[in-house]
Amino acid sequence: MTRRIHVIGIGAGDPDQVTAQAVAALNDTQVFFAMDKGAAKDDLVALRRHICERFIREPGYRFVELPDPPRARNGDYRQAVADWHAARARVWADAITTELGPDGVGAFLAWGDPSLYDSTLRILDTVAAHVDIDYDVIPGVTAIQTLTARHRIPLNDVGEPVLITTGRQLREHGLTGSAVVMLDGDCAFQTCPPDTRIWWGAYLGTPDELLMAGTVGAVGEEIVRVRADARARHGWIMDTYLLRSAD
Amino acid sequence: MTRRIHVIGIGAGDPDQVTAQAVAALNDTQVFFAMDKGAAKDDLVALRRHICERFIREPGYRFVELPDPPRARNGDYRQAVADWHAARARVWADAITTELGPDGVGAFLAWGDPSLYDSTLRILDTVAAHVDIDYDVIPGVTAIQTLTARHRIPLNDVGEPVLITTGRQLREHGLTGSAVVMLDGDCAFQTCPPDTRIWWGAYLGTPDELLMAGTVGAVGEEIVRVRADARARHGWIMDTYLLRSAD
Repeated sequence: MTRRIHVIGIGAGDPDQVTAQAVAALNDTQVFFAMDKGAAKDDLVALRRHICERFIREPGYRFVELPDPPRARNGDYRQAVADWHAARARVWADAITTELGPDGVGAFLAWGDPSLYDSTLRILDTVAAHVDIDYDVIPGVTAIQTLTARHRIPLNDVGEPVLITTGRQLREHGLTGSAVVMLDGDCAFQTCPPDTRIWWGAYLGTPDELLMAGTVGAVGEEIVRVRADARARHGWIMDTYLLRSAD
Repeated sequence: MTRRIHVIGIGAGDPDQVTAQAVAALNDTQVFFAMDKGAAKDDLVALRRHICERFIREPGYRFVELPDPPRARNGDYRQAVADWHAARARVWADAITTELGPDGVGAFLAWGDPSLYDSTLRILDTVAAHVDIDYDVIPGVTAIQTLTARHRIPLNDVGEPVLITTGRQLREHGLTGSAVVMLDGDCAFQTCPPDTRIWWGAYLGTPDELLMAGTVGAVGEEIVRVRADARARHGWIMDTYLLRSAD
């Protein structure tokens, strides 16, 4: 009698990106644990409920919202994240034992794929050290794959590597070759040379999707403007982009 | 009246990774163009036919095999690839105009996602310069996401980048931080320090799936042995792995 948890990648935002494997896991789940927060919360909750309504055949499931412990905003970044994960793990362990019967099945839904800049797996690993759970991971289509699909471009140059990185890292280390930038709130591509090529996308896979491409010199300022407008209009933005240096 | 082409990511090998969007594109297709070759050909053709049989409701479709022009094995690597792409583009343009009616719909199926170390999009871009076609891309679950899902691990360390690269590149440039290695026929992880962590997978998403994890020092030799055995048994192997340096 072990509680089971599915960590389900549900794609970048388009319900049509949900896989057959994810549909099976959705239908196997009794309790969906959610921890949405911030300005995007209402839209993300609505999209997640839409996916459940569309793919779950017998609506016996329910949603349980997990409170999110506060995260230190100053001091060492990695230590703050580690403390926050530990606090989350305690909250999750409590919720899993309280909300699920001894042989119950719960799930966490992850946008894109659970492996990319997502803390669910790290926290569950900690939870599993304290509570008897068995968890599996259902891979999903990432925002990266959605970005390249919508622009109809390869991610890598022939035989060449591509870096998946963050805005912060790009600012600190600059660009070499090709890089996909995620978690960038500050348009770090502006630090790249003007002949750097950029393929940008926001709200990927949704009806609000925005796409722009060109060189940083030609379209960089327009992306900054379009991004700010969209963010003001929606109250939030999720975007990502691929960069390729000119040389 | 424009011929349409879908480039469809069908996941890493598990038919359950096919998305709803891919199912719609499969059902929209009259002709599937295929260019399998080498030792894996029979198995990959069978898997692809199985996916079509499972998801296509009205079996009016057909497969057309495209001959693969020879590829120069010596001389400059990039030039050889470029020449080979140009020759392929001519073959594809002929096949598309011959096999599809003026408003016909064709498709290329790509393992994983069409953006990753796959030449389909580059070749179609060349084809589109000569033949009037309209093509779209359906993103798929990659072998990378399948690898991390099966090992239940994040791809990146918190806030850190991860490089997607090849065996050749790893040998030439070594490892910094985290890297996913694809297209490695020679176990290039053996060039990494023994305390490097490795998560390895082969035939991901299929009933023949193999998984191993540990440090290069502890499991590296066993991976080399298991890989050689599996390759001999199947006649081919597709594998990938995530590396994280110890420091």
